[in-house]
Amino acid sequence: MAMTSREPVNMKSALGDRPTIGITMGDPAGIGPEIVVKALADPAIRSLAKYIVFGMNELLAYAADLAEIEPFWWRVPHDSELLDSELMRTVLVLDYDEFSLLGQAVHHPTRQGGAASLAFCKDAIAAALRPIGSAGRLDAIVTAPICKQSWQMAGEKRYPGHTELFANHTNAKRYAMMFLTSKMRVVLATIHTPLMNLRNELSIGKVFTPIDLGHQACRQLGIDAPRIAVCGLNPHASENGLFGSEEKLVIEPAISMAVENGIDARGPFPADTLFIDALAGKYDLVVAMYHDQGLIPIKLLGFDEAVNVTLGLPIVRTSPDHGTAFDIVGKNRARADSFKQAIRLAVRLSRIQRSQTGR
Amino acid sequence: MAMTSREPVNMKSALGDRPTIGITMGDPAGIGPEIVVKALADPAIRSLAKYIVFGMNELLAYAADLAEIEPFWWRVPHDSELLDSELMRTVLVLDYDEFSLLGQAVHHPTRQGGAASLAFCKDAIAAALRPIGSAGRLDAIVTAPICKQSWQMAGEKRYPGHTELFANHTNAKRYAMMFLTSKMRVVLATIHTPLMNLRNELSIGKVFTPIDLGHQACRQLGIDAPRIAVCGLNPHASENGLFGSEEKLVIEPAISMAVENGIDARGPFPADTLFIDALAGKYDLVVAMYHDQGLIPIKLLGFDEAVNVTLGLPIVRTSPDHGTAFDIVGKNRARADSFKQAIRLAVRLSRIQRSQTGR
Repeated sequence: MAMTSREPVNMKSALGDRPTIGITMGDPAGIGPEIVVKALADPAIRSLAKYIVFGMNELLAYAADLAEIEPFWWRVPHDSELLDSELMRTVLVLDYDEFSLLGQAVHHPTRQGGAASLAFCKDAIAAALRPIGSAGRLDAIVTAPICKQSWQMAGEKRYPGHTELFANHTNAKRYAMMFLTSKMRVVLATIHTPLMNLRNELSIGKVFTPIDLGHQACRQLGIDAPRIAVCGLNPHASENGLFGSEEKLVIEPAISMAVENGIDARGPFPADTLFIDALAGKYDLVVAMYHDQGLIPIKLLGFDEAVNVTLGLPIVRTSPDHGTAFDIVGKNRARADSFKQAIRLAVRLSRIQRSQTGR
Repeated sequence: MAMTSREPVNMKSALGDRPTIGITMGDPAGIGPEIVVKALADPAIRSLAKYIVFGMNELLAYAADLAEIEPFWWRVPHDSELLDSELMRTVLVLDYDEFSLLGQAVHHPTRQGGAASLAFCKDAIAAALRPIGSAGRLDAIVTAPICKQSWQMAGEKRYPGHTELFANHTNAKRYAMMFLTSKMRVVLATIHTPLMNLRNELSIGKVFTPIDLGHQACRQLGIDAPRIAVCGLNPHASENGLFGSEEKLVIEPAISMAVENGIDARGPFPADTLFIDALAGKYDLVVAMYHDQGLIPIKLLGFDEAVNVTLGLPIVRTSPDHGTAFDIVGKNRARADSFKQAIRLAVRLSRIQRSQTGR
């Protein structure tokens, strides 16, 4: 059955019906331009899709020059009408040259960097939300790292990160961050919450949502009956209430709700040993209660290849699992492995979404 | 200089002046008996020290039988006067046979198990606190896992774990848990605190103490100028206050205090990337703010070899980094690697302490 439903997709692919992936360049002062250029310079990556980059031509060209890569893209001003011939290009750069005064030696948070990277994201989201078949419509978005402080300096204080902006601009009511490496998948119940605010934030719904969305995502990725393990919040998952009550009051009811919905969810388990079991292949997905609980193991086990995907959005959005890395900008030292992985996953999810919507 | 000060210790060792290590058997219903027997059955371990086991002969004998190990110890009732000839034995078991009604098929928390493992610990601590040169005095204690619920059932509600009991019974005002693997050292600022109570517990002193004690411990272990990295509490170490204030109000002042005391302490760093740097050898010690933050990476990187040492006590105390493992009791499946490592570290720290006190 699975084979049959996949066949038309593969045939389309063979016929050149590649998805269109939007790439946002991220903060101009970070390693975004460098990893975008390095990833798209890879012929294997270019063969997967058509790409529309929301970014700044001069920074991309500078990064290419440093990496001794011949420019391989077609540039148009971002506010121009796109010609059909331009949309046929494998890599099209929508250039935001009004931000070019930034210069190339700025490697720290700036108001302009925030304004630029916000514009890239908002325009890419708008393009992804266009009706199917529209010129320039994106099948997925891959985001290079932004700088949250730059966003704040640019006056955007509502969003601590990409995920929250994407959720808001696509009207997603339920969403979650999922991280994938070859060794482990983790989804977060909370993201950029100050740790002590979990007291107010962590509700049964907040724990159920990542279990539910993570379950759907695993099934989309081809796991028929995902085995999901849920972390406790407290040391030793509170050891039957000795070290806290959230396991009993919040996490257990959320797991029960998931089980009632036919999901194979178990826990809460002590987080310090659960990841060993996950690494050993005992579970397909771990649900972590907060940022560091999920990201310490993910980064330790797969820093260069970890990929982030936002679940629950009406559009596909993936990103690498690293930041702007201001300290290595302009040194041609950034690695594009994680960004390439994010592109591969975006292509894969786009194809799954197409096959499910019958396109 | 270091060589000179170490030489007398090595000579004493060659002359047979081995330290006396106390071993507490832990919860009788857990894997304690099995790992004690397996560790001490190793001739390499037995050659390092003399051992006094605080435990139950019948359970040790049963574990030995299952593992096809010939009994190698000398048994005396724990309340008998010790003869000189008995103290010469390499492994002496102080038998608490009044607890023997437990039977061997109990693999869960019990009141009796709690009472027994409490007695082992309290008696071992008393033996370690005896004046130097006293008969049966211990140079160090290695503890097999206890069950906190059993302690509670036995009426001991003050101590969430070994560490707190040892601190109280030795009148230690400042103490900290340190974990060691071959790849990384971590010390905790808080231990068995419900996560949301960190709000009340985490003070400048609570963060300074593990930095300070960890610094001393690293120096004892031969690192002249330990490089210490301190974790933030919040996601991205709050990214300059965006996601919480504890970094600025608590952690930074504690680091400044350490620096003023001549300690090379840095941070606070985002915990999700800090452990990558520590793993790469950039730091000798990581100070984690809470249990899971420090133990997720420690266990993921070295489950079978991680060792715990309590810093700040007047006595040496180490333990393996695992629990009672009720699910595998009686199956001869427990591994003694971590327990052996804990014994090796106890022997090493005993020798260092002896050389420092000039014995």
